[in-house]
Amino acid sequence: MTAPSPRDLTIAEAGDAIRAGRLSPVDLVDAFLDHIAAVEPAVKAFVTLLGEDARDGARAAEHEIQHGRYRGPLHGIPLVLKDIIATAGIRTTAGSRILANWVPDHDATVVARLAEAGAILLGKVTTHEFAFDIYTPPTCNPWDLERIPGGSSGGSAASVAGRMAPGAIGTDTGGSVRIPASLCGIVGLKPTYGRVSRHGVIPLSWSLDHVGTMGRTAGDAALLLDAIAGFDPKDTTSARADHPDAFEGLVKGVAGLCVGVPTNFFFDHLAAPVAARVHDAIQVLDRLGIRVVPVTVPKAHIVEIVGDTIGFPETSLYHRRWLRERPDDYSPTVRAGLQLGELCLATDYLQAQRLRAVVAQELMETLSDVDAIVTPTTPVVAIRQGQTSIAFDDGHEETALFAYCRLTYIANVTGFPAVSVPCGLDPDGLPVGLQLIGRPFDEGLLLRIAHAYQQETEWHGITPPVVRKADGARQPL
Amino acid sequence: MTAPSPRDLTIAEAGDAIRAGRLSPVDLVDAFLDHIAAVEPAVKAFVTLLGEDARDGARAAEHEIQHGRYRGPLHGIPLVLKDIIATAGIRTTAGSRILANWVPDHDATVVARLAEAGAILLGKVTTHEFAFDIYTPPTCNPWDLERIPGGSSGGSAASVAGRMAPGAIGTDTGGSVRIPASLCGIVGLKPTYGRVSRHGVIPLSWSLDHVGTMGRTAGDAALLLDAIAGFDPKDTTSARADHPDAFEGLVKGVAGLCVGVPTNFFFDHLAAPVAARVHDAIQVLDRLGIRVVPVTVPKAHIVEIVGDTIGFPETSLYHRRWLRERPDDYSPTVRAGLQLGELCLATDYLQAQRLRAVVAQELMETLSDVDAIVTPTTPVVAIRQGQTSIAFDDGHEETALFAYCRLTYIANVTGFPAVSVPCGLDPDGLPVGLQLIGRPFDEGLLLRIAHAYQQETEWHGITPPVVRKADGARQPL
Repeated sequence: MTAPSPRDLTIAEAGDAIRAGRLSPVDLVDAFLDHIAAVEPAVKAFVTLLGEDARDGARAAEHEIQHGRYRGPLHGIPLVLKDIIATAGIRTTAGSRILANWVPDHDATVVARLAEAGAILLGKVTTHEFAFDIYTPPTCNPWDLERIPGGSSGGSAASVAGRMAPGAIGTDTGGSVRIPASLCGIVGLKPTYGRVSRHGVIPLSWSLDHVGTMGRTAGDAALLLDAIAGFDPKDTTSARADHPDAFEGLVKGVAGLCVGVPTNFFFDHLAAPVAARVHDAIQVLDRLGIRVVPVTVPKAHIVEIVGDTIGFPETSLYHRRWLRERPDDYSPTVRAGLQLGELCLATDYLQAQRLRAVVAQELMETLSDVDAIVTPTTPVVAIRQGQTSIAFDDGHEETALFAYCRLTYIANVTGFPAVSVPCGLDPDGLPVGLQLIGRPFDEGLLLRIAHAYQQETEWHGITPPVVRKADGARQPL
Repeated sequence: MTAPSPRDLTIAEAGDAIRAGRLSPVDLVDAFLDHIAAVEPAVKAFVTLLGEDARDGARAAEHEIQHGRYRGPLHGIPLVLKDIIATAGIRTTAGSRILANWVPDHDATVVARLAEAGAILLGKVTTHEFAFDIYTPPTCNPWDLERIPGGSSGGSAASVAGRMAPGAIGTDTGGSVRIPASLCGIVGLKPTYGRVSRHGVIPLSWSLDHVGTMGRTAGDAALLLDAIAGFDPKDTTSARADHPDAFEGLVKGVAGLCVGVPTNFFFDHLAAPVAARVHDAIQVLDRLGIRVVPVTVPKAHIVEIVGDTIGFPETSLYHRRWLRERPDDYSPTVRAGLQLGELCLATDYLQAQRLRAVVAQELMETLSDVDAIVTPTTPVVAIRQGQTSIAFDDGHEETALFAYCRLTYIANVTGFPAVSVPCGLDPDGLPVGLQLIGRPFDEGLLLRIAHAYQQETEWHGITPPVVRKADGARQPL
């Protein structure tokens, strides 16, 4: 039995080891770079790998720490960023031809805050073109390379699941942090709207967009949130809400909490193993002393049309000029979506905004009775590359995009926080995700539940069974 | 020389007399009802006159006060409301055929607050159809019955100027409190967006609409504001800002204040007497010890298109169903406006909202150097009934609606507070208005400047030279 590689440590564990002088940030970065060299050719998560820069950063962190200037739990921790987040001097492509050669002259606020916390940037990772879908080509799911990682933060999820980075930052407009987290078997947090600055993040739909955190554990998602959350005058939608220390709050436990399981909508049209794993997880929550009660979420069925009627024109406005000047630099699917958004009438947009307020109000009423709502994150596990629609056992058929966003979108339309935590594997060995949706600015509570669940199940300790499919054999990467 | 009629008292004066037992609310209401009987046939400001109800209210107020239950400065004061504000059990027409017979089952929040303060409702007064223009038919301007009173709160302004009520509540979407206040020679205040609840007020454009107060003096506008301002959970746009007592604050004076006079846009294309009166008024401010400096308001020229691109679709959405089911119950002009709003694309609406944020940000920057901005309220005095466009001496020609909103609209697009105070007469004896625009939630400061100006000029003491035109002679009403 060999000693575990530093790359198998969580952020919290690695941070403890660095702080205690037991682990060198240089060794940690090298462990990840070695592993990236081995598995990246199969997973294809990186747009820009910052090998030497990361080593330089690790040496600088080591020097600071050795000289008494320890910055905190992210000091010396390597991370990756979805390539839609601006990094000064580092190409930021948004997965697009339009921005293929864009080198920003400024850091996004989240990048500046991570740097301030001492984190080290390992690289920029893939997303769907302008985050406009859930496939994230060419990235493969580390659990089965023939499957999609989900998206649009697919590169973020695949690099964490593939142990190429201990944590990542993604963005979530309809589920784009939680969907790939679910499909790749990691934790993904979409915080409350306004909690994390979007300054320097290329918008998809500004009233639905959120920056989120991804790691193997709820604790790691909390550590990343603590580093990037908080008011930013550069983002006009930034909230002035107090930010409780989410990581420190995990120890409060879950005794006395109450979660609601929706009796409508959220358990319709599910793959059977997804339903089974989620019901198992609810049993675990019950065992942890959390009260489980049925709830209804009355307007859940209108969320998709409400969100799209808001999101499409917002996206189209951002792209208006490029769409006229460089239409051929978009893929046909994205171009069609942008053109669709330009057809939307202002009155329809406004009606959707009014309905959105009703959805939020009713969800808030549901959450006045319970601390969180528990649902599956996605109705199905990761589908095969190239598959575009999903047929459920009950005869229901749906496009993959609609199916994957079906249960996550409500947290974007309302702005309420939501987390996805892995809750088991289906018979093919593919991860299933459990979603917790909470009250505004209550992400700390969601992470406490996810943390207690992971402590009880030790799910975060499972090494992902990454396989190469070249010769058909299943073997660890 | 006869004793002055109680109808010539300001609200503050009448309130003092009532509190001191020198004036009976019953006598006060009777004085107004007598005067209404005399001049309403010429001015035509009332949609619904509440003669007996008002007398009952006055008797009840008198009884309460005599029995030690004095409610405050509005107790026993008769007021009128723009007929777009819902009154339980009293027809609320919005000047429309659509709502010609609507009798609400609830009071608007402002109505409930005025009732709580002990005010007495004399009647509901005219507005343009759904507040959608500036003419307010069939109401005449008390200063010259062949002229418009302005609008859309024309009935409110005409009834105060015509001494048929000491104060009124109006609404202002592009200038609809300040324009008729200016044309009718009274004070009109549009508070900060969110300061006064719109619950129960029929919307024109919900992101531009404001409820405002109108009286002959800044003090009266302040007393009314103090009664109706403050957070209302029934209005989702209601602000939780503290409300300083605007009336009590008037005594603070204006020493040390600084106002800015725009060097761009706000003094272009003015009728010469308007420019002259406003420059005279600025001299008065200087004499009062207020520092006067030049400022620029960079984006003023885009305000009209920004406001219309936001306002038209918002209005159209509210009317969507009626426009399909009862198109012939709209006047052709209003119907055309509603149809125009339905053609607006969501991307254009969103672009306008983005520009609006820029306008507000730049106006805030201008207001970081000065306490208020001073402009004319309207570029011209009241035009003749039926006149639809205005030709300026410099050759500029403009539709009446555009011309009247040209200088007021910016306070709606930004949500910043603004007040119009009379500043003299043109050679035809028609009133000119001075506008003060301030920082958000700083309406108290604007009212202090207006109050100091009125104290210095005693303008509020001038009896409006109301004339009947039947025989061509000019005589007091």
